[in-house]
Amino acid sequence: MINFSINKTAFLNNLRITKQAISSKVAIPTLSKIKIDVSNEGITLTGSNGQISIENFLSKNDENAGMLITESGSILLEASFFESIVTNLPEVSFDFKEIEQNQVVLTSGQSEITLKGLDVEMYPRLQEMPTENPLKIKAGVLKDIFSETAFAVSTQESRPILTGLHLTLTDNKILKSVATDSHRMSQRVMTLDKLSEDFDLVLPNKSVSSFKSVFTDDDNELDIFFSSNQILFRNETISFYTRLVEGNYPDTNRLIPSEADYTLNLTFDVSNLRHTMDRAKLLSNATTNGTVKLTVTADKVIATVNSPEVGSVHEEITPLAQNGEDLMISFNPQYLIDALKVIKEPEVRIRFISSVRPFTLVPTSDTLDFVQLITPVRTN
Amino acid sequence: MINFSINKTAFLNNLRITKQAISSKVAIPTLSKIKIDVSNEGITLTGSNGQISIENFLSKNDENAGMLITESGSILLEASFFESIVTNLPEVSFDFKEIEQNQVVLTSGQSEITLKGLDVEMYPRLQEMPTENPLKIKAGVLKDIFSETAFAVSTQESRPILTGLHLTLTDNKILKSVATDSHRMSQRVMTLDKLSEDFDLVLPNKSVSSFKSVFTDDDNELDIFFSSNQILFRNETISFYTRLVEGNYPDTNRLIPSEADYTLNLTFDVSNLRHTMDRAKLLSNATTNGTVKLTVTADKVIATVNSPEVGSVHEEITPLAQNGEDLMISFNPQYLIDALKVIKEPEVRIRFISSVRPFTLVPTSDTLDFVQLITPVRTN
Repeated sequence: MINFSINKTAFLNNLRITKQAISSKVAIPTLSKIKIDVSNEGITLTGSNGQISIENFLSKNDENAGMLITESGSILLEASFFESIVTNLPEVSFDFKEIEQNQVVLTSGQSEITLKGLDVEMYPRLQEMPTENPLKIKAGVLKDIFSETAFAVSTQESRPILTGLHLTLTDNKILKSVATDSHRMSQRVMTLDKLSEDFDLVLPNKSVSSFKSVFTDDDNELDIFFSSNQILFRNETISFYTRLVEGNYPDTNRLIPSEADYTLNLTFDVSNLRHTMDRAKLLSNATTNGTVKLTVTADKVIATVNSPEVGSVHEEITPLAQNGEDLMISFNPQYLIDALKVIKEPEVRIRFISSVRPFTLVPTSDTLDFVQLITPVRTN
Repeated sequence: MINFSINKTAFLNNLRITKQAISSKVAIPTLSKIKIDVSNEGITLTGSNGQISIENFLSKNDENAGMLITESGSILLEASFFESIVTNLPEVSFDFKEIEQNQVVLTSGQSEITLKGLDVEMYPRLQEMPTENPLKIKAGVLKDIFSETAFAVSTQESRPILTGLHLTLTDNKILKSVATDSHRMSQRVMTLDKLSEDFDLVLPNKSVSSFKSVFTDDDNELDIFFSSNQILFRNETISFYTRLVEGNYPDTNRLIPSEADYTLNLTFDVSNLRHTMDRAKLLSNATTNGTVKLTVTADKVIATVNSPEVGSVHEEITPLAQNGEDLMISFNPQYLIDALKVIKEPEVRIRFISSVRPFTLVPTSDTLDFVQLITPVRTN
């Protein structure tokens, strides 16, 4: 029969992290619950939507928690409802007491709230993971490479493998993140300081989003463990499990053109180019093929969109550097906007082969660690 | 053939105010347009959704506008699209030039955007209003009385008259605003400094919301004009027209109990009572009748909710003052929350007659200028 008292804010912080894994729209009703395990060492909150699971431990030694555990035990409570109730409690701390089997009373000031729960035996068991030889990496580093690539993940369920982020470690130290929806691709490569075992996996895009909101401290070093169908990111208090996308990711290396193929090389100010594309997009949305046309001649670069019904855009863009042949190429301006959004450097180098071949973007400060690719649209 | 140049921010400010009247979901396609009239004195932007119309004048003498008018004229442009385009222009100012009939070019920096428009003859004419002997009142005063009452307006179309705010002037100076959805009522009365002609009208709730976002300066004195089916609020630059709800508003004065009927008188801290109701609501949402029960005895006031499935709330509330008989009464806690939200004073006086008669709320600092009424729910 659980009995503890705790600081409301500290408890809510943990509850809200765990709730990231809980969806009210799940087929299995018990997954809308949060599992509360109280031991002599502290409180573990567990949430899961079947794809992502989060275990979050709050130690009784945590100074902010002001935790006093009188009796241990476990219970399942409706997660959203429980969170609303705790959020609205009047005082800075509250008592949590199981008064009969699977029924608890929360007391805070003059407020007394009784909640009916379920037996923890009804909760699915989390799949065990081997926890040896972790890959160690800072949360902020992973978040950066996720941001630089995950936007290009496909939203089409017709090829499920492309709805995930392809993450690999090769030569025990080359970490690579790739995403493509077959219209554009983004690839980020980095060399890790420490050697680890190679891996090759596809992370669902939803897990990537959850990861970012669960691990908020960028300096926090995570231990990462793998099994055939699951990955576990863990720090001192949080275990974040996610299932992987099954299947083999297509070979994306072959999509990147070789240096010799490029016929035109342009350098732009990222912010200027992005604003031009923002304006082009407004008009291109009103056209049938939704494209902007770039016309490159020796003395200028012109972006145009022409919608017979709505109007047209005609805009000269001044490149910071230019060398190569003339070109006329059409593409979806949204893809270029998305690509420019994730470039932190002020300048971008864009290289073209022809009007029908994909073009590539790299930050000018970079070599080939971060390369993006956009496929043009054929227009007549 | 219109031709002017203008500061982008100043133009956008006016455009956004006018756009409040424009809805993309209107049956008449021309109403998704904005009407631009350029005269030698300045630019008038007009928008309308058939119910609300806004005319907004930007004078060429406005210092912030940096306006230079070369040629006058009129055109209709697609409002949302035009706003997006102007928002995304690169420089602080832009040129607006009609190049052929109903076709304009916006030029800003190296960006040149051509837009197709329509002839202003296609735009519906705004109904003329008599503009003599205005009622004069500050925008902030109207916004206050609207906020204190409009939340109680009915959202049910079954009695259209109750979907509006009843606004009257009697004795040439007593301004009254009333709303009721037949479960609760809010009534605000104030005495104006200047005498005006009496009126009795019902303002649609949507117009009340738009009013608040159009007239942002609370100190701005407005001129108000009436016709049988329309009201016009006007300052130096903005004319805000709205159609009225047709029909006779029910007599709400008879709903307010007479002093002699009250049997119980309680004074509460507004914030404490509201938080108790917030918690009660979480549980009451899970019950069939959605109510909280207040049990008042000589020595305490208890709020309880009991949901057989989910749990229960039991909370003692300490009144600041209490006199009268014991009582047990049930009601929808949301109505009490809404009522407390609009009380700016720290304390509220609630007076009861019996468990089946409406109870009233007044701020303790007030007499009867601001009274709210909530109908209880009979439970067995």
